[in-house]
Amino acid sequence: MNYQALLAPRTAAMGSNAIREILKVVARPGMISLAGGVPAPESLPVALFAELTHAVVARHGAGAFQYDLTEGFGPLREALAGYLGGKGIRTTAAAILTASGSQGVLDALGKALIAPGDAVALEAPTYLGALQAFAPYGPRYVELATDEDGLRPESLAVALDREKIKLIYLVPNFQNPTGRTIPLARRRAIAGMLQASGTLLVEDDPYGDLRYEGAPLPPIQTLAPEHVVYVGTLSKVCAPGLRVGFCVAPEPLRSWLVRIKQGVDLHTGTFSQALAAEYLAGGHLPRQLQRILALYRPRRDALLEALGRHLPAGFHWSTPLGGMFVWVEGPPGLDAEKAYRRAVERGTAFVPGKYFFPLPGRGAATLRLNFTGADPAGIRRAVGILGEVLEGEGNVRPAPAQPTTVRRASAESARCPGAR
Amino acid sequence: MNYQALLAPRTAAMGSNAIREILKVVARPGMISLAGGVPAPESLPVALFAELTHAVVARHGAGAFQYDLTEGFGPLREALAGYLGGKGIRTTAAAILTASGSQGVLDALGKALIAPGDAVALEAPTYLGALQAFAPYGPRYVELATDEDGLRPESLAVALDREKIKLIYLVPNFQNPTGRTIPLARRRAIAGMLQASGTLLVEDDPYGDLRYEGAPLPPIQTLAPEHVVYVGTLSKVCAPGLRVGFCVAPEPLRSWLVRIKQGVDLHTGTFSQALAAEYLAGGHLPRQLQRILALYRPRRDALLEALGRHLPAGFHWSTPLGGMFVWVEGPPGLDAEKAYRRAVERGTAFVPGKYFFPLPGRGAATLRLNFTGADPAGIRRAVGILGEVLEGEGNVRPAPAQPTTVRRASAESARCPGAR
Repeated sequence: MNYQALLAPRTAAMGSNAIREILKVVARPGMISLAGGVPAPESLPVALFAELTHAVVARHGAGAFQYDLTEGFGPLREALAGYLGGKGIRTTAAAILTASGSQGVLDALGKALIAPGDAVALEAPTYLGALQAFAPYGPRYVELATDEDGLRPESLAVALDREKIKLIYLVPNFQNPTGRTIPLARRRAIAGMLQASGTLLVEDDPYGDLRYEGAPLPPIQTLAPEHVVYVGTLSKVCAPGLRVGFCVAPEPLRSWLVRIKQGVDLHTGTFSQALAAEYLAGGHLPRQLQRILALYRPRRDALLEALGRHLPAGFHWSTPLGGMFVWVEGPPGLDAEKAYRRAVERGTAFVPGKYFFPLPGRGAATLRLNFTGADPAGIRRAVGILGEVLEGEGNVRPAPAQPTTVRRASAESARCPGAR
Repeated sequence: MNYQALLAPRTAAMGSNAIREILKVVARPGMISLAGGVPAPESLPVALFAELTHAVVARHGAGAFQYDLTEGFGPLREALAGYLGGKGIRTTAAAILTASGSQGVLDALGKALIAPGDAVALEAPTYLGALQAFAPYGPRYVELATDEDGLRPESLAVALDREKIKLIYLVPNFQNPTGRTIPLARRRAIAGMLQASGTLLVEDDPYGDLRYEGAPLPPIQTLAPEHVVYVGTLSKVCAPGLRVGFCVAPEPLRSWLVRIKQGVDLHTGTFSQALAAEYLAGGHLPRQLQRILALYRPRRDALLEALGRHLPAGFHWSTPLGGMFVWVEGPPGLDAEKAYRRAVERGTAFVPGKYFFPLPGRGAATLRLNFTGADPAGIRRAVGILGEVLEGEGNVRPAPAQPTTVRRASAESARCPGAR
């Protein structure tokens, strides 16, 4: 039977999500991975979950294992309202929708809002998973310029001036893949543009709690609540395997997201949500977060220190104040994809940066390095190898720009590693 | 800000999934519900989950709480291969995709296969959640005729002869909403038509294990494996709150469903899947299933007996050998929607059957009754009330056929109760 002939045209726009590929690379014995975007296993409160399970069973009984409302498990939405209040987001349980990871929110937003050809403006580079959530709905990506301080507001102003933008997607805190953070002045400027132009922003904030230095910045949502869907997740501060994400969205957008989610999975797992509610309401998050920060901070420091020691001249990199990633820009002509293959042969993995660009042919000389997946000693060893590999690749003459494949299904994209 | 103006055109085809509405109706104090499609709370192995949690933590440690492969949690896919073998489905873990409930499979199938205007053939009436999973992708529904033995093969033959059918959706065992089961001879005829026409069938089997009498029938998948995506769930035989469903699909269709699922939720909850794996591998399902059958069988018997005693002349109903539902057809002119409102006023809920028809204006005189949500005494009391309500409604003259709204967002559909 010819299954290919059955595929809907929208499948042509779907690249392979590379998270599974990276998990396979990371899983190889002896591999030191700077490629992942997954929490360190030792950062997960494994023992705590048995305790939380008993509390959930005692508190909710069968209700924790039954069908539940699409909007989300009540006690979790209540707990999230308090958690978000701590970020300055003034909301109520009723305005919160829980989802199967923040990915579930991105898919629902794409289905609700993106008609084929609609302009979606995002940072270049940006989160691969957002591109893959939106792609089936046929967006036309509009790239926004970034610098060391993330999105350049003037770039957004030009885009808004030039055409109707259906939605803007940003990761303002410790962005994936660059690790950069948008400063307060720029957040105010962006909020002003949203209000002036009546444009909707999807503010994705998976890393905001993972701050190793400096004071937290207010979410853009707090500056323009009517124009922002704030998206969060417990994957980085509790456990990704629960698949519990959430969003705060203005009505009637929230009720449309609920209606859409009903057709996708009815609701997010009740038991997972009940565990997450117990985790938040029980005050476990602040304690656990301290452990996570104490684990990750030295890893970030080790990576930055090792980069300074091992990377050849002509390489520059970001200095993230939080999150999981450092962004490296090599000299023109560097083929990071080729370097990736060489590095993997020598037991070190990273993600070629080109895969994080919405449009083809960009970022061939860039790399995303993760620092949460290996310990400081492993990170130093990996960067030592990386330095040698890049030394050998640095002087190649420019290769013809190859179209990248994040928006197109191909063997190449299927091999491309990357992760939230 | 005008959020309505931002909505993609596909949202016009999205009705509200009524599962949440029914949950609200069921939740009213004193309400006896024949409307739900949810397992009895007392059927859920609540105490067992604490035990399973300890086993999962001991066996998998952090791996049970980490990101995992989109294809599904390995040990669960292995256990499902054995479980499906017991149904005569010869498959391997590699051919199985786990999903966030069977709803997650239906959404992925719609996204992969349905282009706007594609013909999707299904029983009339059929499962509301399937209509809502497919609707955003723009299908044109082709209704197939049914009788006491479910789908009438000649009706399928006519549809396949008349036009290109992109996919067929059937619930062959104890169908929702009718409770009817397609006999073996018809399954063979359907399989033959799939092979002769090269058409794909989505065989949804959430209720197959809930058989109260008679011998199990082979899934259509076993008769035409290359032409069938078999969809299952643990919601009815373990716990819906885990949101663990699965499918067996031929390659390359399975790999497309994986790619699509990646953009929707990355993967289904690891912990939920690990608990499900422990439940299956630990041999808990057969024991639990016996408890469930012992609980539900008397409820079905009580409902059928009470219908015989209380329903006025001119009413007919199905006699399901399993599952959760009995289908009632009233005399022409009955307005089951009106009867529903009267019944709810008197503390009894059911689902007007018209909401389960793919096309508008059908089934105004039909009702779906669930027998798993109340005990035999409650069922008898509810049917007593229902009999009085229908007695009063039975002789009204035919109301003009109102268009139903499963495919259109409206206040009416938003109020319509219904559930898997």
